[in-house]
Amino acid sequence: MKTQDELKKIAGYKAAELVEDGMIVGLGTGSTVRYLLDALGERIKNDGMHFTGVPTSKRTADYGANLGMQIKSLDEVDQMDITIDGADEIDPEMNGIKGGGGAQTWEKLVAVNSKQVAWIVDESKMVDQLGKFPLPVEVLAYGHHQLVERLDALGYNPVVRVKNGETFHTDEGNIIIDLHMDHINDPDALADALSNMTGVVEHGLFLHMTQTVVVGTQDGAKVLTK
Amino acid sequence: MKTQDELKKIAGYKAAELVEDGMIVGLGTGSTVRYLLDALGERIKNDGMHFTGVPTSKRTADYGANLGMQIKSLDEVDQMDITIDGADEIDPEMNGIKGGGGAQTWEKLVAVNSKQVAWIVDESKMVDQLGKFPLPVEVLAYGHHQLVERLDALGYNPVVRVKNGETFHTDEGNIIIDLHMDHINDPDALADALSNMTGVVEHGLFLHMTQTVVVGTQDGAKVLTK
Repeated sequence: MKTQDELKKIAGYKAAELVEDGMIVGLGTGSTVRYLLDALGERIKNDGMHFTGVPTSKRTADYGANLGMQIKSLDEVDQMDITIDGADEIDPEMNGIKGGGGAQTWEKLVAVNSKQVAWIVDESKMVDQLGKFPLPVEVLAYGHHQLVERLDALGYNPVVRVKNGETFHTDEGNIIIDLHMDHINDPDALADALSNMTGVVEHGLFLHMTQTVVVGTQDGAKVLTK
Repeated sequence: MKTQDELKKIAGYKAAELVEDGMIVGLGTGSTVRYLLDALGERIKNDGMHFTGVPTSKRTADYGANLGMQIKSLDEVDQMDITIDGADEIDPEMNGIKGGGGAQTWEKLVAVNSKQVAWIVDESKMVDQLGKFPLPVEVLAYGHHQLVERLDALGYNPVVRVKNGETFHTDEGNIIIDLHMDHINDPDALADALSNMTGVVEHGLFLHMTQTVVVGTQDGAKVLTK
């Protein structure tokens, strides 16, 4: 029986094969992405592969640079050839929830500017319906308690994210409200409703943007494509 | 023939009558609002009126406090009884464009948390169709040039706002992209499209939220209601 960590490694290493020489590659953040970076570092070292990485966090930027990757900001490139990132939940339509780490806005900015998006996950992240994982919504700090009340009135069970006893702030200085919805019946309608709410910067629903999911399973890597 | 400034004063003074003792009042920003504040200051001084003002800018907060208004932040109140603000363009449906001053996000946050919204304008702001006034869109700085390209491809004629030779930044540290569309045929569809674009924090279309417009005209104040 493989551990969850081993499944993440299987997915991360398999997904490294999606990267080709000369590509501009969006690089996600998180424990599964860490394995992807390790695998890419080995290809740089052993095969002399070259590519440009566009990281979605400082953590990924530092880790990748140490492995010899050329790192550029989103503002220095036009478009990514592919973005490879983790996800917190993925449904059969390859729609997902991201943002457990609080970085979903930059992750989505990189994803929407990519020709292709691939997600790498262990098999526990594959679900029939989204929503068990609380949906992160990044909102402006100013006036956020009115927004919490509005989300509460809609039945979305909003909880302002706290870290180490204090309100969590994103890299942009905003707040995260996690929606404990249990199940999301219509992700498109919810995404639209949230996007249209004043004060919402970005939500963690990533819909219709992913073509490949690499899953680490007990039987090895499974590559799902759309 | 009255000057534009006199028309603004007529509107601002008339709108002060909308404020009643004990109300929580959202206070906009700009040259027309300045006259509203003057009128409210006179009522405080002469009639002993009391109300709580929730300002949409530091400028309004300072000016109002000097006139004896009790000033609270949006985070210190639940809901405004009324918000009175200026607008850059208003159509016959009482939909409008705001944000020439770059403060539309806070202005909209205050407006959407108000039981009633009133706009005060000189008659030059009343238009048959929105869009001659460039539509301000507040966006995250990170990755904004990809967003400019996307808006350009949609034919929206985006221009990154510059002030004193440098990229303009909002109070939230974001960038403003002004859309020079000339005419906006379907404000609801445009609002929805913009809200759903990753990187957009808020746009300057204020739709279906205003019940009263006080217009300063050559024939005096005209109060339009819905």
